[in-house]
This record gives sequence, structure tokens and C-alpha cells, in this order.
Amino acid sequence: MRVGIGTDVHRLEDGVPMWVAGLHFPDETAGLAGHSDGDVAAHAACDALFGAAGLGDMGSNYGTSEPEWAGASGVAFLTETARRVRAAGFEIGNVSVQIIGNRPRFAAHREHAQRVMAEALGATVTVTATTTDGLGLTGRGEGVAAVAVALLH
Amino acid sequence: MRVGIGTDVHRLEDGVPMWVAGLHFPDETAGLAGHSDGDVAAHAACDALFGAAGLGDMGSNYGTSEPEWAGASGVAFLTETARRVRAAGFEIGNVSVQIIGNRPRFAAHREHAQRVMAEALGATVTVTATTTDGLGLTGRGEGVAAVAVALLH
Amino acid sequence: MRVGIGTDVHRLEDGVPMWVAGLHFPDETAGLAGHSDGDVAAHAACDALFGAAGLGDMGSNYGTSEPEWAGASGVAFLTETARRVRAAGFEIGNVSVQIIGNRPRFAAHREHAQRVMAEALGATVTVTATTTDGLGLTGRGEGVAAVAVALLH
Repeated sequence: MRVGIGTDVHRLEDGVPMWVAGLHFPDETAGLAGHSDGDVAAHAACDALFGAAGLGDMGSNYGTSEPEWAGASGVAFLTETARRVRAAGFEIGNVSVQIIGNRPRFAAHREHAQRVMAEALGATVTVTATTTDGLGLTGRGEGVAAVAVALLH
Repeated sequence: MRVGIGTDVHRLEDGVPMWVAGLHFPDETAGLAGHSDGDVAAHAACDALFGAAGLGDMGSNYGTSEPEWAGASGVAFLTETARRVRAAGFEIGNVSVQIIGNRPRFAAHREHAQRVMAEALGATVTVTATTTDGLGLTGRGEGVAAVAVALLH
Repeated sequence: MRVGIGTDVHRLEDGVPMWVAGLHFPDETAGLAGHSDGDVAAHAACDALFGAAGLGDMGSNYGTSEPEWAGASGVAFLTETARRVRAAGFEIGNVSVQIIGNRPRFAAHREHAQRVMAEALGATVTVTATTTDGLGLTGRGEGVAAVAVALLH
């Protein structure tokens, strides 16, 4: 068995679509900027899986030298990461992700997000959300962060 | 087996009692503000347990729609979280928590805190503490953070 | 089995040698300040191991009351931490570390770093790296952070 950890942060920008944890939040007026769709929850989960498996990280797997991943969705990254982890001989036990930030309002969408991410990975994914009491980059609304752990067999 | 991760941050305020990791620190002149007692270590541990079990998070379990949890202690949250995790069919393997901040001075209280948290959860809890070299929200003394992982069977 | 988590942050200072994940990066013009060599990846890994084992933390094991550890390398801390964890009766399953910061450019050194840290611990170590999109203490280049999880048997 192997554990892995990953984190990610993306900047909140007005007028950008908000994608987090595999879902689009159409009511949000700001979203997460990035070369991809900025889905910090999916990216943290992928880095936790890569870390557990010893397969590099998001940057080495999907970096700027791989232009086909520019603009890719969180679900696309999760699907391909699971494929690479399994190709290396691991089974995915579970992934636990926490979204850290003021936006989006996540609670009503938890079950849906967990279902979408679990389908992409073919394994149990759980998602929690919290805030930082108005402090730091997430508390000031500059960005949204995520942390994740993964268990592999 | 399942792993889970949780984090929490609360603001330091002068004149508020300092409660962290299930303990009161009466010599501290500032404490952690919040709807509860602000115990970031207990809250991070609960979110790690909820994340591992797939039972929502602190907000969905003890949110503002559950006024009986306003002002609750870290120990009360740990006790009830362990009950809910076991009711869902899991055994708690262990929980590891790290407190990140300038205050309180924790080292002399580690064994006591671990005993109090372990008794509340009915499982092994370990607590480490670190600082961020004067940087960020915890380094500037604006707040205290905690991160936790949990292992469930 | 036990899981543990650890984090660390050190300040970037011009003219200080950059040591991270057991490696020296001679081309970097700034490095990580601290009582030791400032190797946040090694320190986070040690705290994850101590947290999993319940053996205190970096501060209680190698604190200012233990002057022989002033200036110690990340590899020295990893080697001694593994010894203490094994002396307490645990086997080390694996350690996953993520470096969070703008510097150093890590990708080309991942395999080397993983080998050096794994040799020090006598167990599998994987290292990922990420940035925070220009936000927070690491995004502003004030410091470098690391997070780690460890699995013990």
C-alpha cells in the first residue's frame, strides 16, 4: 500500500468559468484561471495519485511540452491519471480532497462532485470544503486551494 | 482501508480563550475566534475523518443550521465525529495532526493533548507543531492553521 | 498501519545555498534560511514520520536544546528520523512529499532527489512539485513550503 499527497492553488478571475471538483458552477461570477480549467480539486487529486505511485507530477505528466493538455478539464486529467497509475500496476483505494476557499458555495454540490470524480477515477472520491476565516490568499478571495491524499494498493 | 485529509484556519484575537488540540492554554493572551471554540486541530481531525468516511464535512455536519453546535468544544466535535464514523461502519486506525502557528507554545502540552484527543476519538491521535518562519498568515500571527490525516478500516 | 502528515516553510534569502529534497541546487541565487539547511522537503517528511509514529516532532527531537543538530542536512535528519521510527518498532511503508514554490526548478532533479531521500530513509520516497499561481507566501517568492504524508507498518 502507498499513500500520496497533493495540493494546488489557482487564481480567481472575474469572467472566467468556475470549474471545481469536476463540476461547472454557472452562477459564480469569477472562476479559476490557468492553462487548464483551473480545477484545483482535480489537480490536487492527480498529484496525490502521482505521488503515491511515484510517476512524477502534474507538471511532468501534462506540462507545457504536452500542448494537448492545454485547456483540459479536471475530469480529463483524472481519467488519464487513473489510467497511468493502473498501467504502473497499482489499484486505487480512495482519494480524499478538501477545497479551501470562499467560493464556490460547495455543500449542495458535494454528492454530484464526488460522483463525477469517482467515475473519472474508477474509485471512491470524497470532497470536503472549508474556509480560512478571511485570512491568507484564499480568505482574501485571491484564489482557491485544494489538498488531497490518495491510498493505492 | 481509507485515508482522509482535513485542514482548518482560525483567526487569533486578543482576549479570546486559546483552545487547541482539546486543551485550554490559560497563559495565552489571544485565542482562536469562531462559532465554536476555534480548535483548529480538532476541526482538521474531524474533516480528515469525515473525508475518509465520505460523510460530508464539518460544515455539513455541524453547520449554522445546527445551532446546538455553536460554541462546541473540540472534544465535543471529536466525540460526535467518531460516533458518526463508527455508525457508518468504519473503525478508526489513527489520526495525525499538525498545528501550524506561532502560538500556543505547544511542546510541553503534547502528551496531554494527544491523550485528550485520543480519549475523545477512541483511537490513536498524534499531534506535531511547526511554524512558517514568520511568513504567511500564521507567520504574521494573524491566525493558526492545522492539517490532519486519518486512516480508517 | 499508521498515517502521518507534516508540513514546513522556510524563508528564501539571497546568497544562501539552496538545499531541497536532499539536493544542492548550485545555480540558484537564493536559498532557504534556517537553523539547519532549510530543507523543507526533508523536514516535512520527518514530521510526517514522527506524526505517524507518535514520537513528537522536529522541534522536540532536534530542537535548540540539541545543538548538535544546528546546521544539519536534510539527509542527516531523514537518516536519524528513520532510525528513531524503526527503534520504536515501525517499518516505513512510503513517504510522499510535495514541494510548493517558485524555486528551485525541480523537474530535472526529481529522480535524483527521490533516490537520495529513499537511501536516507531506507524506504520509497516520491517527490512532486507545484506552484501557487503567484499567490501567497510561496507565490510571492518569500519562501518555499512542503507537505508530506507517511505510511508506517
